Amino acid sequence: MTLGEAEREAIRQQREMSTPTRRATVEALEAILFEPIEVLDHGFVRVVDYMGDDAAIVQAARVSYGKGTKSVSSDAGLINYLLRHRHTTPFEMCEIKLHVKLPIFVARQWIRHRTANVNEYSARYSILDREFYVPAADQVAPQSTSNRQGRGEPLDDAAAAAVRARMQASGAEAFDLYDALLAEDGPGLARELARGVLPLATYTQWYWKIDLHNLLHFTALRADPHAQYEIQAYGRVLLDIVEKWVPLTHRAFVEYRLEGASLSRTQLQVVRRLLRGEAVDFAASGLSQREWAELQQVLADRV
Amino acid sequence: MTLGEAEREAIRQQREMSTPTRRATVEALEAILFEPIEVLDHGFVRVVDYMGDDAAIVQAARVSYGKGTKSVSSDAGLINYLLRHRHTTPFEMCEIKLHVKLPIFVARQWIRHRTANVNEYSARYSILDREFYVPAADQVAPQSTSNRQGRGEPLDDAAAAAVRARMQASGAEAFDLYDALLAEDGPGLARELARGVLPLATYTQWYWKIDLHNLLHFTALRADPHAQYEIQAYGRVLLDIVEKWVPLTHRAFVEYRLEGASLSRTQLQVVRRLLRGEAVDFAASGLSQREWAELQQVLADRV
Amino acid sequence: MTLGEAEREAIRQQREMSTPTRRATVEALEAILFEPIEVLDHGFVRVVDYMGDDAAIVQAARVSYGKGTKSVSSDAGLINYLLRHRHTTPFEMCEIKLHVKLPIFVARQWIRHRTANVNEYSARYSILDREFYVPAADQVAPQSTSNRQGRGEPLDDAAAAAVRARMQASGAEAFDLYDALLAEDGPGLARELARGVLPLATYTQWYWKIDLHNLLHFTALRADPHAQYEIQAYGRVLLDIVEKWVPLTHRAFVEYRLEGASLSRTQLQVVRRLLRGEAVDFAASGLSQREWAELQQVLADRV
Amino acid sequence: MTLGEAEREAIRQQREMSTPTRRATVEALEAILFEPIEVLDHGFVRVVDYMGDDAAIVQAARVSYGKGTKSVSSDAGLINYLLRHRHTTPFEMCEIKLHVKLPIFVARQWIRHRTANVNEYSARYSILDREFYVPAADQVAPQSTSNRQGRGEPLDDAAAAAVRARMQASGAEAFDLYDALLAEDGPGLARELARGVLPLATYTQWYWKIDLHNLLHFTALRADPHAQYEIQAYGRVLLDIVEKWVPLTHRAFVEYRLEGASLSRTQLQVVRRLLRGEAVDFAASGLSQREWAELQQVLADRV
Repeated sequence: MTLGEAEREAIRQQREMSTPTRRATVEALEAILFEPIEVLDHGFVRVVDYMGDDAAIVQAARVSYGKGTKSVSSDAGLINYLLRHRHTTPFEMCEIKLHVKLPIFVARQWIRHRTANVNEYSARYSILDREFYVPAADQVAPQSTSNRQGRGEPLDDAAAAAVRARMQASGAEAFDLYDALLAEDGPGLARELARGVLPLATYTQWYWKIDLHNLLHFTALRADPHAQYEIQAYGRVLLDIVEKWVPLTHRAFVEYRLEGASLSRTQLQVVRRLLRGEAVDFAASGLSQREWAELQQVLADRV
Repeated sequence: MTLGEAEREAIRQQREMSTPTRRATVEALEAILFEPIEVLDHGFVRVVDYMGDDAAIVQAARVSYGKGTKSVSSDAGLINYLLRHRHTTPFEMCEIKLHVKLPIFVARQWIRHRTANVNEYSARYSILDREFYVPAADQVAPQSTSNRQGRGEPLDDAAAAAVRARMQASGAEAFDLYDALLAEDGPGLARELARGVLPLATYTQWYWKIDLHNLLHFTALRADPHAQYEIQAYGRVLLDIVEKWVPLTHRAFVEYRLEGASLSRTQLQVVRRLLRGEAVDFAASGLSQREWAELQQVLADRV
Repeated sequence: MTLGEAEREAIRQQREMSTPTRRATVEALEAILFEPIEVLDHGFVRVVDYMGDDAAIVQAARVSYGKGTKSVSSDAGLINYLLRHRHTTPFEMCEIKLHVKLPIFVARQWIRHRTANVNEYSARYSILDREFYVPAADQVAPQSTSNRQGRGEPLDDAAAAAVRARMQASGAEAFDLYDALLAEDGPGLARELARGVLPLATYTQWYWKIDLHNLLHFTALRADPHAQYEIQAYGRVLLDIVEKWVPLTHRAFVEYRLEGASLSRTQLQVVRRLLRGEAVDFAASGLSQREWAELQQVLADRV
Repeated sequence: MTLGEAEREAIRQQREMSTPTRRATVEALEAILFEPIEVLDHGFVRVVDYMGDDAAIVQAARVSYGKGTKSVSSDAGLINYLLRHRHTTPFEMCEIKLHVKLPIFVARQWIRHRTANVNEYSARYSILDREFYVPAADQVAPQSTSNRQGRGEPLDDAAAAAVRARMQASGAEAFDLYDALLAEDGPGLARELARGVLPLATYTQWYWKIDLHNLLHFTALRADPHAQYEIQAYGRVLLDIVEKWVPLTHRAFVEYRLEGASLSRTQLQVVRRLLRGEAVDFAASGLSQREWAELQQVLADRV
């Protein structure tokens, strides 16, 4: 992450401000407000603003005049209930605003979540910084042999270094051309055209605002091991922010969503037969191979 | 408006809280936070939470690290520009949460705005208060003769009083039946069924959260003289809240939207011909009668 | 259901039309197009238009130039995969448009699903028909004792008849007042005001358009036994329409969603312990009573 | 545009199908169904499916049992009224599905319109074709001197040719590296990683489905002269499709939106003063320079 001194100073100034408010306030989030949390080689996530806390969820669910319930334990119970039964609207009553710097190919996955507000840095209006993503050596991996859209084990050190060098050189050349096309003593090409030569690994940045329900959905999909590693890295940071912001909701989310599982009608039948003491193997299960494997994994012990 | 003592006490308690925050804070909104603003005979609007201010719009538009621009006047200039050119996304970066009590027939118009978050008081789960809307005497008006969906001048005092008395009696009877159906020493009917007998004028309440862009759109439609009077009453309160919250945006909104006008291709041609000194009457205008009348109104002097 | 002759004739005329099209066409849906399917005492659902079929889902998932895959079985496999892994966007590529007549209190639950398009009959512009919902005798039930928002077993015949008679009378009186208020030789009250006296059981109607993904989500929530009976009745009709429209998707939806189940982290641990042969009772389960009961139900045999 | 023979054959087969339907059918759209309409150097737009027509808008606005009104002229009148008064929901009752091939930097602008359904070709799952956008000579233009986010007059032929050659070479090199990274006898890098080196000018493709109201909004913004030329090219194609699909709506859209104008409160005051015969110059107008210039342009004669 490469913040200039002007950016650091702007952040310092914002962090120094303090105003009294009657609104719900979350200490753990105030502590990190405006601070960039590093992600990948040049990216970051900054919490810029937030609205609501665990109690605000309870308050909205009850359409009440005051704060939530009388005690933290009854708040927790109601939040568990709401999350378990997918009563999603109370979670929409909390909102968070982030400043995110991320590679464009990650931004393109990210933006597929439509229920959010976005202001992106404009490459028609401004010149992009010379920053592009090159995977760390332990992330330089071949196409997965078992999964059409994932990657396998990393290459060995020498091979990884070679790949990284080629990516680095290619990105540098693209930015050289970008600079040359924009140069005032050159063609002075329109920024909106010149950017076309930049790689998909180029970093962009945006302000992104989303409600808690949709943020949970986002992290469930994007912090998942099946997501591309690069967006997972952001997903995990978002999950940490959720934990600081609304700890009761975070705990319920882990219990009922992240570490829970959905079983199909046929998978449930297999479980019922197993519990009755039947020996059910793949052939007798009525499941596809993939569904069988998934069921085995769900039923395997986890510590 | 009829708040019980428990509700008043809950509001008092919330208003007494004060916590330091690094977030953008708006004094004029803090001053009214949690306080019910009366609307119609039993309704209210309470600001429960908010996120952002005028500077946050500028900050998002610039995807900047610190606060908005250096000065209020340059903030105002940028906000004018954004609103004039319908760059709507920076206005989505502010959010407000309201607690609203309103007649169900108003709620049904209100909910047609889909880009908002809602938690409504559940009449399956809870018993509704005996509160229903009866229009004030000066709002008891016959069907408009010129407008298929509006009302005309109010009835005279006696006629209005008669109408009001019948509405009052009818609502009271419906609530009597509701109570009787629910009575434990009666049928003890399920609340979700018993409510079917209550009038559309019955008050409901909800938490409603919306971003500033969509709130402006809502008020443009609902504070408009063509909207039904009852939702207009809420629309005007929302507009006052906007003025307190984001005064620069409010001013731009009045200038470019509320007191501006959209002219059609043919209406513009008429204006151009008039400015060239041509005498253009309805017959020569190429406009429908309604469009002609609208143009006359737009061009008429307003003080 | 009380369609007038003019309505029946309009429907007949629409059904007689036939035009050749290159678009995906579904015979089973063409067969019922425009025909009202009765729901409750005066309601209906009519399929007015549709876009896409099972193959269109496959086509969109593959971003392909032609139709789906080569065979129905590979289409089914892909649809199963998409639904199982919650790849929802291909299901958004099918769209359906319905004309629905329904009690206003049902409409108010229905409209909470925001991702749909709606045009409702305007009671500002038009006079409402004298039609309101009175539950059939076997639906007249007291508040549930175990569930804060449901109903229990129906009342006995005499008690149910008494409740129905009171609801009928109350609705009739409300409509009498409505007519009197609107009467031209009476106050001639504005329609937008007069409707306030009508009961929440009054029927309204709307055109409602939704994509298949959101329709499945709607039916999962609204055809569910926990939903209020009256909206369940509509939910089940929608599910039948889905089966006619996209049979492969319907089958996958039943397998992976409707008759599947989500287990929490702790519930999964209980299952694993049971499968290892441990005796786990409620006390040792770490579950709340409600979660324990839900798990018992999921694990119980179903035929 | 470079369709392979397999793609052409798939399109031919789809075009040969014909099935009778009771649904609204639009001949002018059937005529072009599935056919690619070329845009830029390798892009296209194909209409893949559609729902509704002008009459369907009327039908929805009236929540009617049969088709629209009795005559085309009364349909046109109602559509004009709806569009003029921004009654947007009836226009949401028509839906269209397109297959679009477009440069990624255009796709990134396009996707900012959230109220649409999208399935994009996956570069995690599949290898991207060697196709990237190079602007035609008459589009190779320097940064605008008057507009921070536009381009000026094209470069001279030699300079444009030089820029194009450099863009072509840079894209080719990036694709050479992409191929090398993917090569099975090379590192066999995961596709999701290798794509990072490809330029933003690379073509992608997606299925895109949107309702008519949102499509009109999209074209109003994107067929506008202030939009980047490359997305304008798509916007104009979409506008042509709208004209074929719903000619009455298209005409109203041109009259009330595309060739109409919004004037601010102060601009209207200037017009009123001019019409009273006052001489109003910039200094006396109360407008900013930009607003003054915009007003002059609106009031200037157009043929």
